[in-house]
Amino acid sequence: MDAALDAALRGPRGANPLVGAVLTDETGRILHTGRHMGSGTPHAEVDLIAAAQSAGTDLRGTTLYVTLEPCHHTGRTGPCSQAILEAGIRSVVCATADTTETAAGGARFLAANGVDVRSGLRADRARRMNARWWACQEEGRPFVTAKIAATQDGVVAAEDGTSQWITGPEARAHGHRLRARADTIMVGTGTALTDNPRLTARGPDGAALPEQPRRAVMGLRRLPAGAALDDGEEALRLPTRSPREALDRLAREYSRHVLIEGGPGIVSAFLAEGLVDELYWYTAPKLLGCGRRAIAQLGATTLSDALPLTVDPAGAEADATTHGIGLLGQDTLTHLATEPAPATERK
Amino acid sequence: MDAALDAALRGPRGANPLVGAVLTDETGRILHTGRHMGSGTPHAEVDLIAAAQSAGTDLRGTTLYVTLEPCHHTGRTGPCSQAILEAGIRSVVCATADTTETAAGGARFLAANGVDVRSGLRADRARRMNARWWACQEEGRPFVTAKIAATQDGVVAAEDGTSQWITGPEARAHGHRLRARADTIMVGTGTALTDNPRLTARGPDGAALPEQPRRAVMGLRRLPAGAALDDGEEALRLPTRSPREALDRLAREYSRHVLIEGGPGIVSAFLAEGLVDELYWYTAPKLLGCGRRAIAQLGATTLSDALPLTVDPAGAEADATTHGIGLLGQDTLTHLATEPAPATERK
Repeated sequence: MDAALDAALRGPRGANPLVGAVLTDETGRILHTGRHMGSGTPHAEVDLIAAAQSAGTDLRGTTLYVTLEPCHHTGRTGPCSQAILEAGIRSVVCATADTTETAAGGARFLAANGVDVRSGLRADRARRMNARWWACQEEGRPFVTAKIAATQDGVVAAEDGTSQWITGPEARAHGHRLRARADTIMVGTGTALTDNPRLTARGPDGAALPEQPRRAVMGLRRLPAGAALDDGEEALRLPTRSPREALDRLAREYSRHVLIEGGPGIVSAFLAEGLVDELYWYTAPKLLGCGRRAIAQLGATTLSDALPLTVDPAGAEADATTHGIGLLGQDTLTHLATEPAPATERK
Repeated sequence: MDAALDAALRGPRGANPLVGAVLTDETGRILHTGRHMGSGTPHAEVDLIAAAQSAGTDLRGTTLYVTLEPCHHTGRTGPCSQAILEAGIRSVVCATADTTETAAGGARFLAANGVDVRSGLRADRARRMNARWWACQEEGRPFVTAKIAATQDGVVAAEDGTSQWITGPEARAHGHRLRARADTIMVGTGTALTDNPRLTARGPDGAALPEQPRRAVMGLRRLPAGAALDDGEEALRLPTRSPREALDRLAREYSRHVLIEGGPGIVSAFLAEGLVDELYWYTAPKLLGCGRRAIAQLGATTLSDALPLTVDPAGAEADATTHGIGLLGQDTLTHLATEPAPATERK
């Protein structure tokens, strides 16, 4: 199960939980590994079964270890319960049960159809790995990713306001991949007024990707007519300063994963209320010494009140990071989680 | 020679240049690799010869590629020229000549003793790799390492002045290894007054290492009697605000490698004058949002005037970094060089 949990950490966080799976033979040897790579891509079990079938592996006598109970519903992908049954796997071990209304029932279905199903192995680690995601489900709000691009000394805009570009092309390309993972990209009205961003997800060639996330702008200031983020479909207005209100509204619009791109005021407001689930921090190897800070007031005036983060190893394959850090050209990417040690258990 | 240059980058920067060596057989296959691991440790050639001899390699017919002309003097280690001759290596290829007064003459000695010596292969890359070190030799000043420990958002002390400890035990232990590499540790009088540091290099058990670097304090403010950095031998006073004057004085004290530990004012003054050769930046995964910035004014008010750094891959083995970045517990270490792309050529 630990191998399945490690596989889970290769995929990115977002609308869906991290899930990993391994297939072993009767001696416990690992034959195949599967992982979920984010919303709209195959579930870990299906990823694994496809690998096993294309390798011609005989599935009789094998055991499937999966970090989350196989789903039993048809969403953008078919039910994993059915796929496991059809593949002929006779034994399934899950770490945690799926308690979401839509997807639950996979274990019962499999057991009813003669599959040997056990549950609860390494449940603690599996639950901790997705702790923030489960919290989102319980609170009925979208998963929140924030993205910051700063100099080594934590500055996001020089004293004269210039900020394009702090990071290099590789980091900016990664930023577009982050956009494509979310269903909503949000900025504050301040950033919309200063930078006039388009907030489109673009590919390596600079062309807009066919499927675009929704754009949203939060705050009380008015945008002028013809703002770039109103190109095509007008951006969603969230006329509030309250992070919780903004997320409530986004949840009503069926958002399940929002990417906040700034500015520092809005990111800090979400952080201060504990409403950022993960943080992608791009650090450019340059120093400004003055200018706008990446993080605004958090109410911490002494070191012990600092907001604790952990370097988050999740997304290793999707982000080309190792244990949560990586180089993108000359820039450093640090993937941070906003709870003390949720998914960062290492062996 | 590229393999020798890659080997050179495994060692740390400091009083000595980075040097790497490889030994090949007649077909060009690499038999052994050597690298210099810093002042007081074996030179790359001696490191390589020791490896070859302990493996019982027949050295006849082999070629030694070394990134810097073998030294011809006895310092803390014996002359490499003599060691090569005694080992029986008949062919030596150097990337660059050693032009320092004390160590030059190795190639001439080897050639005079019947060794086939060539020079100049990949000289550009070898010279670029040690560009800052050569500049120090020409200017007659010590090599300057600066060390900064900051929160993810670039803060080195909270609003109330608390700063102990921003980073975790692994990062602080690495800081002690940095101290042990230098012959002088320097702080500003401000830091001496605020933190009252001992500036001793301590091992993993917290005990002071047998050999301690000299301690120096720069600035115009007076320290009270009984300051911790005057424990035992009194710290050297550098009563100036000029980085150049401080380094001149340290050079007269035979310093060849100084580590600057802060505060932000002194580090920034050295950076602004181009007198920092490398920067070790520890980033703790926490956010303060306010407090003292890691870097003070550098005179850059627009983004294009930002001080450019490069992530420096040197020291990979000494620091356990990969391409200049690494994790120390939960903290990130970024090793930065202060010239655009000096040693960061990657293949």
